Amino acid sequence: MKKFINHPENVVDDMLRGLLLAHSDQLRSVRSDNRALVRADAPVYGKVAIATGGGSGHLPLFLGYVGKGMLDGVAVGDIFASPSSRQMLDVTRAIHGGKGVLYLYGNYGGDVMNFDTSAELADLDNIRVETVVATDDVASMPKGYEQQRRGVAGLFYLYKLAAAKAETGADLEEVKRIAEKANSRVRTMGVALSPCILPAVGHPTFQLGEGEMEVGMGIHGEPGIQRGSIQTADEVAATIVSAILEDMPIEKGEKVSVLINGLGATPLEELYIVYQAVHNLLADRGIDIDSRYIGEFATSLEMAGLSVSILYLDDELGRLMEAPFVTPFRIQN
Amino acid sequence: MKKFINHPENVVDDMLRGLLLAHSDQLRSVRSDNRALVRADAPVYGKVAIATGGGSGHLPLFLGYVGKGMLDGVAVGDIFASPSSRQMLDVTRAIHGGKGVLYLYGNYGGDVMNFDTSAELADLDNIRVETVVATDDVASMPKGYEQQRRGVAGLFYLYKLAAAKAETGADLEEVKRIAEKANSRVRTMGVALSPCILPAVGHPTFQLGEGEMEVGMGIHGEPGIQRGSIQTADEVAATIVSAILEDMPIEKGEKVSVLINGLGATPLEELYIVYQAVHNLLADRGIDIDSRYIGEFATSLEMAGLSVSILYLDDELGRLMEAPFVTPFRIQN
Repeated sequence: MKKFINHPENVVDDMLRGLLLAHSDQLRSVRSDNRALVRADAPVYGKVAIATGGGSGHLPLFLGYVGKGMLDGVAVGDIFASPSSRQMLDVTRAIHGGKGVLYLYGNYGGDVMNFDTSAELADLDNIRVETVVATDDVASMPKGYEQQRRGVAGLFYLYKLAAAKAETGADLEEVKRIAEKANSRVRTMGVALSPCILPAVGHPTFQLGEGEMEVGMGIHGEPGIQRGSIQTADEVAATIVSAILEDMPIEKGEKVSVLINGLGATPLEELYIVYQAVHNLLADRGIDIDSRYIGEFATSLEMAGLSVSILYLDDELGRLMEAPFVTPFRIQN
Repeated sequence: MKKFINHPENVVDDMLRGLLLAHSDQLRSVRSDNRALVRADAPVYGKVAIATGGGSGHLPLFLGYVGKGMLDGVAVGDIFASPSSRQMLDVTRAIHGGKGVLYLYGNYGGDVMNFDTSAELADLDNIRVETVVATDDVASMPKGYEQQRRGVAGLFYLYKLAAAKAETGADLEEVKRIAEKANSRVRTMGVALSPCILPAVGHPTFQLGEGEMEVGMGIHGEPGIQRGSIQTADEVAATIVSAILEDMPIEKGEKVSVLINGLGATPLEELYIVYQAVHNLLADRGIDIDSRYIGEFATSLEMAGLSVSILYLDDELGRLMEAPFVTPFRIQN
């Protein structure tokens, strides 16, 4: 296992200390174990607060989206493991600005259980909490079972749109409605070329043969829907775009936002090659790409692979997409 | 070889087409082969123009630094290969706004030869050209031979500072002076954990044993100064910080900017772990980190590894570091 770490058990703690040293002007820890981080200026009064959380190993997810015009706080778990309900509650209390809190995170069992417990505890503090869970991974469950799908890189769009709505001073129901609308209109599919190694485990999360790729793999190495020989970038793009548009038909003349997300080891050069193919496939169908995000937005440590997310815009979402935001990770609009 | 490409020979062309489709509002091609790209609003009259260039495979270097408050144009070579003097000349002509052009790039033989030829050709067009070559890699040549060192991630600081100076309306000599000053005050050292594979070659650029790392390796896999067992993040940071400060002593109470650069496959989590160690090592010596950049700024395809750059600030450079810039790659100040 080749990693720049000190001890496998200390990876998350060391990472969090580095992060807080680097970005103390923008992020603040509200627990001595640093597992609950909030905007330096939290709570922001008169604004619906948005909390997220999840396992570590996916930077910039989840931490990287806390900032002005984005999220208010995050609970930080161990590598690929849910944070505790107590950590989530500490985030909730620190960010609540009097207008309630929206929980916004990916659909994984541990996270759902702990966020639900945290919401019950927050209720005892008279903090209103609503929850929207991202379920954008089309490959994780077939059509008709959308609510059981995993949440992956498309969560970025839920963050961005709900946060933009919250910035307008909208109430909790309205911010929740936007997050739900975004979730209903975003689809993601990923392809893995290689596994990653969890520091505390020391061996790869799965095996892929030389020359093999797996279509539909999750960001923790969850099995995909098809394993086979490596395809060209054009073929990979065609597979993904077809799967997404079959699941969520988009008419000619409509607008989308596209996110080409690197899972860790895949060079930016390759993401642009795939973007070219996605652009051309959508153009062939008369679909207009209104905005695009190309880079690493939700990773799986050093996994080689990528995902493509398509957000089906309407006028309301299109306007919210233009809102500015800034995070310590220099991810900006 | 596991890559999202169509054909090994078309990697750069496909990448450039994707990039231009994605960022046509900010970047413009001035050659039918797309190997010369400039700011969409080039030339900017009344401002010294800055051109760079080099081989592909290092994104966001070099392309990613063309934008407002940053560079004016870039010549794009094949993977790890210099662009031609003709491509550089086309960039030069397209960006010249009447105040001359600064060539700013890394110290590699092919690039130097071709940029020098381009400067001679530009002179025939009555375009004044000055050149500053980045030589920040301390591991590439010993002290006393600084001018023969390779240019690596520290080039980012030369770009940023020279561009900020150019934005003030300074003349060519002044912009050149700032680039030279930045180069004289920045040092970088890298460590590689794994090689990368050039698409047209198909096998790794070098071999590193299981459990081995190489200190001082260049961003094309040039040999380093020491190969040995993998060290902890703290040990790696100590090796690098010692080497840099031995080469460029910095007194207690002085200020620096630090760049922790991922070479491709290394997760952001690990970069923050190394940042923590670098921060503590500098704090122990009473050196203050005034700004920091943590992420991928100069990569080597999917190489696992990182580099640390330290820029020794003075008042003049400190002020220029604060200037805003924006690039299509969402790398911002």
